[in-house]
Amino acid sequence: MERRFLSVLLAGTIMLSGASVRAEINLAEEPVQPVPAAPVLDRDKVKLGERVFFDVRLSANKVLSCATCHNPQTGGTIPGVTTSVPGASGVTVSINIPTVLNSGANETQFWNGRSPDLEDQVGGPLENPDEMGAKWADVLAMMAGDEAYQTAFDAVYGGITEEAVRDAVATYERSLTTHDAPFDRYLQGDETAVSDQVKRGYDVFKEIGCTTCHTGSNVGGTMFMAMSEDYFADRGTEILETDLGRMAVTHDEADKHVFRVPPLRNVAVTPPYLHDGQAETLEEAVEIMAKYQLGMAEGELSPADRDAIVAFLKSLNGKLAE
Amino acid sequence: MERRFLSVLLAGTIMLSGASVRAEINLAEEPVQPVPAAPVLDRDKVKLGERVFFDVRLSANKVLSCATCHNPQTGGTIPGVTTSVPGASGVTVSINIPTVLNSGANETQFWNGRSPDLEDQVGGPLENPDEMGAKWADVLAMMAGDEAYQTAFDAVYGGITEEAVRDAVATYERSLTTHDAPFDRYLQGDETAVSDQVKRGYDVFKEIGCTTCHTGSNVGGTMFMAMSEDYFADRGTEILETDLGRMAVTHDEADKHVFRVPPLRNVAVTPPYLHDGQAETLEEAVEIMAKYQLGMAEGELSPADRDAIVAFLKSLNGKLAE
Repeated sequence: MERRFLSVLLAGTIMLSGASVRAEINLAEEPVQPVPAAPVLDRDKVKLGERVFFDVRLSANKVLSCATCHNPQTGGTIPGVTTSVPGASGVTVSINIPTVLNSGANETQFWNGRSPDLEDQVGGPLENPDEMGAKWADVLAMMAGDEAYQTAFDAVYGGITEEAVRDAVATYERSLTTHDAPFDRYLQGDETAVSDQVKRGYDVFKEIGCTTCHTGSNVGGTMFMAMSEDYFADRGTEILETDLGRMAVTHDEADKHVFRVPPLRNVAVTPPYLHDGQAETLEEAVEIMAKYQLGMAEGELSPADRDAIVAFLKSLNGKLAE
Repeated sequence: MERRFLSVLLAGTIMLSGASVRAEINLAEEPVQPVPAAPVLDRDKVKLGERVFFDVRLSANKVLSCATCHNPQTGGTIPGVTTSVPGASGVTVSINIPTVLNSGANETQFWNGRSPDLEDQVGGPLENPDEMGAKWADVLAMMAGDEAYQTAFDAVYGGITEEAVRDAVATYERSLTTHDAPFDRYLQGDETAVSDQVKRGYDVFKEIGCTTCHTGSNVGGTMFMAMSEDYFADRGTEILETDLGRMAVTHDEADKHVFRVPPLRNVAVTPPYLHDGQAETLEEAVEIMAKYQLGMAEGELSPADRDAIVAFLKSLNGKLAE
């Protein structure tokens, strides 16, 4: 919790007749950091990974590709779809689709952080019967029968292997970074890049403790935190395996409902929110977080402050690197 | 048939002790023409159309996008899938997926040519219950609720309308041209761009009459031709609506089995072949064409000539414009 108190101290808001005057931005000390410059990547690997990422032939039902659910064109997810879509088995995974955008900056992958990196993550949705439902042997055989894959994998990796496919897809995913968000321009010194409401929202975001967890260039994705038991009690619906969080990984009761803190980059274009997709709007999501995660009483977060946080979150929308 | 005799005359192959010596390429007189330079298009429309093209939210089941079946990364189709994939209704359309690549150069769209242009074509798969199963009202409502679409359509078209969506998607599709195919370099004077087998294959392709129908920069896509009754008789399976060809459009018995001549650009990367996907390989497809469409007797097309035609077809693979 040390970090939380520190961020509250750093916020430095001075109250003046009810209005708040923002302290100067000191980039080095801000909990939220700009998205770093687009990484330098092997363009051949990126192009090959892109081809794999969009290829429905990887899936058991020949309909689903990685891009079906993680569409770079629409925030790296399927906006407005509550959790997932029917997988190759016909079953829908009941977890909100995490965005692929900027995912290279997350310290772990998946809501329960069960993958340490993108190379490892690739196999998850691919092999899950309720997602793409594939088998590596079938994927590699399909690719071996495709002259374009053969030529490209031979040139870039010396052959088609599971490791090469994982590397290509992960490299492509790392290329999916978003830049030039208004808030990043503001962090880098352009005072005119965002409205006063956004600046106010960022101050509130820090003051009430959101930055305890939502830190770094991805404004999340760096740590784990328990979702309050009260949230699940009030939700009133059955506890699913996808609600267990890290407990599904560690089988330790202490990890029940512990999730990777979701990154908030481009969050405005990736509704719904929360691991179970139960919040349709940012306003709802902010209110749920204030109540259950920060323990704020009803009315403690004013509608104006809530809207300011939402305005701040909207300023995190960036443009996909070309 | 005038064109056919002309092309046979132009082929000008001189037999010399069993080997054929190719006449010089005279570009203006060749039935196969290079892909023209990438068209100059409004980049904002292309980008917006790309977003729509890849967006699964357009479909009734939120799983299918235009790109599911017409993936620019894999030849503009789903290679190796016999006909289509299950649509929003769960039913699979029994027609081989036509490629979206270079589709702007086709004089009509669809196997039965029922659309005059890409703007018109867009609504076909979108509204077909057995494909994306969408309704325009739902598509436009989804887009109106998406800030990114709103902003982009407002900026580019002054608002979100069916016409604007059709225009954006069609503009994006026109950007999907493939260039620098070895055969194009050869046509343009680079004698070293293709092997002697390819040159021989092109000569045979012209000599036996393939270029009667497969002409122009798309090596097809410009005219209609009846698929032989014998083909369907020998196939032996039920005649489906998708086998009727233009008769399904004109309701004229004379148009039974009349199809748009398929374009052959990038054909090597888009198996299977024929409107019903019955030929798995180019070799099979060439043999079926020789037998049923050119009326050649068994053995009349030698295996060497068949393989030369296949080599020629493989030289039509180009690179997607960036």
